[in-house]
Amino acid sequence: MSLIVTKFGGSSVATIERFKAIAQRIKKMQDEGNEIVVVVSAMGDTTDDLIELAKATGSKLSGREMDMLLATGEQQSAALLALTLNNLGCDAISLTGWQAGIISDSTYRKAKISDIDTNRIKTELQSGKIVIIAGFQGITPGGDITTLGRGGSDTTAVAIAAGLGADRCQIFTDVDGVFTADPRIVPDARKLSFISYEEMLEMAILGALVMQPRAVECAMLNNIDIEVLNSFNNNPGTIITEVGNMEQDRVVSGIAHDLNCAKIAIFDVPDQPGIAKTLFKALAEGGINVDMVIQSAMRNNHNDIAFTIDRDELPKALPVVEALVKKIGASDYAYGDKVAKVSIIGAGMQTNPGVAADMFEALADEDINIHMISTSEIRVSCIIDEEQTKKAVLALHNKFNLNETEQN
Amino acid sequence: MSLIVTKFGGSSVATIERFKAIAQRIKKMQDEGNEIVVVVSAMGDTTDDLIELAKATGSKLSGREMDMLLATGEQQSAALLALTLNNLGCDAISLTGWQAGIISDSTYRKAKISDIDTNRIKTELQSGKIVIIAGFQGITPGGDITTLGRGGSDTTAVAIAAGLGADRCQIFTDVDGVFTADPRIVPDARKLSFISYEEMLEMAILGALVMQPRAVECAMLNNIDIEVLNSFNNNPGTIITEVGNMEQDRVVSGIAHDLNCAKIAIFDVPDQPGIAKTLFKALAEGGINVDMVIQSAMRNNHNDIAFTIDRDELPKALPVVEALVKKIGASDYAYGDKVAKVSIIGAGMQTNPGVAADMFEALADEDINIHMISTSEIRVSCIIDEEQTKKAVLALHNKFNLNETEQN
Repeated sequence: MSLIVTKFGGSSVATIERFKAIAQRIKKMQDEGNEIVVVVSAMGDTTDDLIELAKATGSKLSGREMDMLLATGEQQSAALLALTLNNLGCDAISLTGWQAGIISDSTYRKAKISDIDTNRIKTELQSGKIVIIAGFQGITPGGDITTLGRGGSDTTAVAIAAGLGADRCQIFTDVDGVFTADPRIVPDARKLSFISYEEMLEMAILGALVMQPRAVECAMLNNIDIEVLNSFNNNPGTIITEVGNMEQDRVVSGIAHDLNCAKIAIFDVPDQPGIAKTLFKALAEGGINVDMVIQSAMRNNHNDIAFTIDRDELPKALPVVEALVKKIGASDYAYGDKVAKVSIIGAGMQTNPGVAADMFEALADEDINIHMISTSEIRVSCIIDEEQTKKAVLALHNKFNLNETEQN
Repeated sequence: MSLIVTKFGGSSVATIERFKAIAQRIKKMQDEGNEIVVVVSAMGDTTDDLIELAKATGSKLSGREMDMLLATGEQQSAALLALTLNNLGCDAISLTGWQAGIISDSTYRKAKISDIDTNRIKTELQSGKIVIIAGFQGITPGGDITTLGRGGSDTTAVAIAAGLGADRCQIFTDVDGVFTADPRIVPDARKLSFISYEEMLEMAILGALVMQPRAVECAMLNNIDIEVLNSFNNNPGTIITEVGNMEQDRVVSGIAHDLNCAKIAIFDVPDQPGIAKTLFKALAEGGINVDMVIQSAMRNNHNDIAFTIDRDELPKALPVVEALVKKIGASDYAYGDKVAKVSIIGAGMQTNPGVAADMFEALADEDINIHMISTSEIRVSCIIDEEQTKKAVLALHNKFNLNETEQN
């Protein structure tokens, strides 16, 4: 008998018909002798509809009351899945985040789980019940409802798996797992059987939106293996695990690309101590996340500074930059929103020098100009023109032989 | 400074525009120096929509999971009203039933409030906040969410007013108060300034659906005055209070009618001890509420027994009756669904004999045949043909001079 924590979200819980399909899958797991905890997201458009209602009140969409409102979506899903399972003759009980003992801080709309009291879950499992938990939510020590922010249901599942010491943690999505590249761009992209936490984190952050980074971090911290599976079929998925569980003969595991990029350049920034701090602090205070940064070689005691941000934050960023240019005495600024980021990711890079050079060569062979470069131990990213994204991803996928049969 | 508990439900919370209107009203009360607790129902069709989803799962619409599902509607309303008030610059906080300390038994879908722990509400009031409470819900001592059944939000408001020792308890509806008869039938029906708990209970049970009986009972038990007001205007409403607070010169306070009636007759029931018990126990076990009962004079050791039930329970009742007729050896049964109940209600009846005779005379003068009669200390009800309802109500309203200026 295994204890399995399994999460269903997105299109897996879009309609009551989908609830019936996943209920059959859950029933089968139980019939095979397993103890089951299920974490669910809100149905279809529920969260968006609630946000629309909140907008109509004229209020800010933040703070305690938004979480009171939004947490109802997952509570509804959990109750409906329990009803669906009961109708199949399974004994199921739904729990809200607070009933499931998920304690969080009080950073409303992106609260972090601080503790899990698994007593209630364990009691219900021991009485033979399938336990359905409303994802994405917790409770502060003072008794206020919080939501965990984007990808919160994934995090709920991983945290509960850790708290219970579960044998398996499954995240059901609408894709077969983690691919070497986006199959819509690379037709012969291959599904990976395994990927390390670190690689998955880079993939997730860089735009391959299978799993939310916070959930992967939580799994890495607690050393929980995650299986990413497709709720629409029975194909084997991808297991996210620690790098030591994998053979180390893959230098590059995948190619990620991200079109939500914009580039801003500020010209002739005076070369004074603290000027970068002023610049990036102002952007941070404006709620703008800066990704890559390049400072050009000094010329007459002035630098050019370029950086990238999420493209959808450009309207928020430009007024901040405009004000800063005047304040710090720079000469001018420019921006471009037709850029993209392509990245190669692989835990094996750490022990294989020359991978970055191979990447630049592959892009050069396709006449793709590189605007900016950034690297981490297991990743190399390049900013290129957006219109060359597809060509770049295909060239890199080919260069690193990612279409070949998996060796791991 | 007064502590006011005020409840908004139905069309008062149907749309965000209505939330804005009631928020202005609440802000005004606070600006006048009062402490405010607001109880809200679910918006518009929310509860019906959730029931439709539950139906689609194929499950029974009962038990713990239904309450998990349905309680979200009021939680959403409470959060949205808090957001609306925050947007007006008022400091408001929403509380679920369990956050507000509303403890209930575990009779899901019609739980009864067993206790209220008002600590959290008091703390929030002391910090100057308007406290918005999700009506219709509670929590069991074991930590499971319950709903209080039909009219539950009215009961929440009255119970909280009692728990807090509030100065006023206001129930906002979409009518101006309690009328001497349904104004859609009697054009010169008059709004009552005062009505006693007992009269209101009879009115509520008999189909004048301004207030739910359970809430009136709760107010009577705790000696809380309730003001029934219209959220769409500023007219004075009706105060529901103990009879001692009113002058006693009204014999009949109002006329109620109820079209949700059906009559069933069972013929030639053997006159044996326990036969009535068998009959009404079987109906009760079938979930069918019996209202009026008549047993005809005995004839050859057999009786005819007739009773009325809610018309919408007829499809459920007929198979039970059919089986019973065979079981107890009765000869046959018949039913009629074209009947209605008209009633006169008045606390003054207790000290004014002859009121029932006046009622029968008024009906006879209009050639209205009376099928069944039942009485209580402050009520006389007659079952008549449905098509004569309007004529009967008008005649009774006129007979007891209810269109005259109020004397109380």
